[in-house]
Amino acid sequence: MKLTTINNQTRDGQLVVVNREGTRAVAVPHVAMTMQQALDNWEQVAPQLNTIYQHLNEEGINDAFDLDLDQVMAPLPRAYQFLDGSAYLAHVERVRRARGADMPPSFLEDPLMYQAVSDGFLAHNQDIDVVSEEYGIDFEAEAAVITSDVPMHVSPEEAGQYIQLVCILNDVSLRNLIPAELAKGFGFMQSKPRTALSPFFVTPDELGDAWRDNKIHLPMRTWLNGEWFGEPNCGVDMQFDFAQLIAHAAKTRPLSAGAIIGSGTIANHDMSKGSTCLAEKRVLEVIADGKPSTPFMSFGDDVKIEITDEDGHNIFGTIHQKIVKY
Amino acid sequence: MKLTTINNQTRDGQLVVVNREGTRAVAVPHVAMTMQQALDNWEQVAPQLNTIYQHLNEEGINDAFDLDLDQVMAPLPRAYQFLDGSAYLAHVERVRRARGADMPPSFLEDPLMYQAVSDGFLAHNQDIDVVSEEYGIDFEAEAAVITSDVPMHVSPEEAGQYIQLVCILNDVSLRNLIPAELAKGFGFMQSKPRTALSPFFVTPDELGDAWRDNKIHLPMRTWLNGEWFGEPNCGVDMQFDFAQLIAHAAKTRPLSAGAIIGSGTIANHDMSKGSTCLAEKRVLEVIADGKPSTPFMSFGDDVKIEITDEDGHNIFGTIHQKIVKY
Repeated sequence: MKLTTINNQTRDGQLVVVNREGTRAVAVPHVAMTMQQALDNWEQVAPQLNTIYQHLNEEGINDAFDLDLDQVMAPLPRAYQFLDGSAYLAHVERVRRARGADMPPSFLEDPLMYQAVSDGFLAHNQDIDVVSEEYGIDFEAEAAVITSDVPMHVSPEEAGQYIQLVCILNDVSLRNLIPAELAKGFGFMQSKPRTALSPFFVTPDELGDAWRDNKIHLPMRTWLNGEWFGEPNCGVDMQFDFAQLIAHAAKTRPLSAGAIIGSGTIANHDMSKGSTCLAEKRVLEVIADGKPSTPFMSFGDDVKIEITDEDGHNIFGTIHQKIVKY
Repeated sequence: MKLTTINNQTRDGQLVVVNREGTRAVAVPHVAMTMQQALDNWEQVAPQLNTIYQHLNEEGINDAFDLDLDQVMAPLPRAYQFLDGSAYLAHVERVRRARGADMPPSFLEDPLMYQAVSDGFLAHNQDIDVVSEEYGIDFEAEAAVITSDVPMHVSPEEAGQYIQLVCILNDVSLRNLIPAELAKGFGFMQSKPRTALSPFFVTPDELGDAWRDNKIHLPMRTWLNGEWFGEPNCGVDMQFDFAQLIAHAAKTRPLSAGAIIGSGTIANHDMSKGSTCLAEKRVLEVIADGKPSTPFMSFGDDVKIEITDEDGHNIFGTIHQKIVKY
């Protein structure tokens, strides 16, 4: 099924069930008022939402309405946790090479992951406010899963069962603030501001055969200022699947319902697929030409991110955002 | 005023106003059901809660009841954000010295801060479940503030006005997992599991003259297995006050209501004050004797943390926790 949150002038918005085409929606206050409420009670709530979804797709529902995408907030407008992995080592390797660092062999077995900002997510079409272009503004196209409650010390084999929803996101990055923060060892604070979520969260079964081995086997397509930028496949070269990322996160503590686990920037070893962030394009230029020729984003630039399945169905809706001076 | 949350079998519990002695409480469902709800609407809610607090202290309130500390949850059982600073450079310097690293001069101007676990906080008396003693189990006694909505790019001079509540906390640390995580640069993930919050949140005015310059000017007292462990003053050697920490956190993004900003382990240059974590005691032993003689915590060990004012008033209530094998 497909879910999102529409703006009702509250912080958490109103949960709605959306039809497969992403055009019609219905509020479900008798089941759950908000996405977080649904996740808090997923086992009871999911079957009810799924029944509504079937009706909405098949015969329509009296209370359904045309979905106005401008009213769609981040499906989870604020979350108690966002943990972002970096599971595509092609990206890690290239970015480290750009700053003259090798990739330690331990990275093949021990996932990179950090606590990311979760107290507010940008909507799919929301402007990205940045104080200065000097920060080195970049996008990162990623996939993510949303979990129900995960017990502490869960095994990778058991962790997959807690994946309830899937989405894509734009992990906005301020590249020129990163080196100093990484040098401190304490992770990203100022260099990774708020992230944008896709218009829709979907259950993994919406992906059909493209969801297997706890990965999405479809290309992540991005455009910068309307020009093709890349389409690496999310299922290729993902060193750690989402179940492994969850197990890593839960090693010493449980995860509460509504935890968002990000994949990291999608990247394939096959360079013909392009990139999903400017940092990577620039390091490929450094490798080829000795210096980067593509600048970071300027005020007014826009990025578009989506995943379509083999039938051309835009599963999560489109993230389309512009950089704006704060 | 003094606030907390009592267990009503929901994830967020029920907000109650507590009297100054921490012995009587009253539910306030007509004002706010939960602590997060109060913080979401602080400007409207705070004056109403404050009036109730005055009545509770002066003449009592009909619906008030004796507060059972065993029913007290973390005052904010889950939060959208917990950012933990490391503002006491005496601690940073000593801990770095223990692993053979100098403190860079930039640390005097650029605060250390990381995104910490906020999707669940332990209650003041809740056992700390750990899989293995090999992890190097430690406590860290800290102070923290809770903010209302903070605008992006706020200045340190303006940031203080967003401090609405103050508490103390135990930042549980798994020392032997830290070096590998810091080496990755992505911050603490597995090495800092859930944190415990004090029984009470109080408004800064409850601290009287001990709250000034956006700092708490009182000793943080800790006991390990009933023995005195330390009492460094929170107002001494705090390189960055809470307003500066908030401004650092908000440099590139706003902070949502209910953000918790931690001070880092309290530490004074005056070594006679003792420590507030084992890591620091051990490094002082290394400096004196060439090797640490105090072990990390074992299953069954307990730690007690509190701040009392000059009249002996236990402002935030006591954190008292035991280590238990998971």
